[in-house]
Amino acid sequence: MYYETICQMKKMLGQLDKWLDAAAKFAEAKSFDPNLYLGFRLAPDQFGFVRQVQTTCDTVKLAASRLTGKDAPSHPDTEATLADLHARVRAVMAYLDGLSAKDFEGAATRVVTQPRWEGKVMTGASYFLEHAVPNFFFHITHSFAILRHNGVDIGKRDYLGTLSLRAP
Amino acid sequence: MYYETICQMKKMLGQLDKWLDAAAKFAEAKSFDPNLYLGFRLAPDQFGFVRQVQTTCDTVKLAASRLTGKDAPSHPDTEATLADLHARVRAVMAYLDGLSAKDFEGAATRVVTQPRWEGKVMTGASYFLEHAVPNFFFHITHSFAILRHNGVDIGKRDYLGTLSLRAP
Repeated sequence: MYYETICQMKKMLGQLDKWLDAAAKFAEAKSFDPNLYLGFRLAPDQFGFVRQVQTTCDTVKLAASRLTGKDAPSHPDTEATLADLHARVRAVMAYLDGLSAKDFEGAATRVVTQPRWEGKVMTGASYFLEHAVPNFFFHITHSFAILRHNGVDIGKRDYLGTLSLRAP
Repeated sequence: MYYETICQMKKMLGQLDKWLDAAAKFAEAKSFDPNLYLGFRLAPDQFGFVRQVQTTCDTVKLAASRLTGKDAPSHPDTEATLADLHARVRAVMAYLDGLSAKDFEGAATRVVTQPRWEGKVMTGASYFLEHAVPNFFFHITHSFAILRHNGVDIGKRDYLGTLSLRAP
């Protein structure tokens, strides 16, 4: 389910891309600078909106890269406008588009580490389940919540996107 | 990965259970009624904290029930205190404790529906990936964010819990 979950995350990046448009629309209706959203946050010592979006993007990008061994594009975190954030989100979607189910073979038993783990490691399976998935949803939901808290007209359907419903 | 993901959700309910204690501690330090937290929300037309926690619990409980066919306990949404919310969270953790990996065999091909889908259905696989997992994380992260926004001293480690790190 690694590939399927990464595809679900890509779908949700597409939703996030639409929330940025909804934010711009609300700012226009209320006559304020839409790029103010980048600095909004829910608590003084929590990430602001721009870093929530950057971290959402990095979480899925790095998870895909670590589980497939395929190099990911580097992003220097210099976004200053909603347009910059659109570009960041779409760049990660394009990177994910280039991966296939076959690339994730053996993902569960890969050895994953990162500098803050001070030399310790996790299996790909544990890393994905305990770290990547919860972190992705943490940051994308905070991105949603910051916009929602600041007036943007988005709801659960904008979060989930279209479901694969069918006739019984 | 259905069972493993449900176990991860159970772990996160255990974290949520601790956030309730952190909320009570902050309320005591600031001398306000800790049960005020139940009504706090991030936007006037979003669920308040009590309903975020109830929906977090229901999302994983109903997902486990629908994917295994095992009846889940009913909860009437009458919680009025942090103690009530502790009980709700722990009841769902106890229900999940009673399920095994074997119970989830065939989960992917089960047919899932709910009243709001107006007669339409999803496969167990699609329902879990597109609906249950994103909704669970949406509501548990909003529960976290409402507390964080209202002064509670919780951070990413409290969200993720202990990771399965090991020596290389």
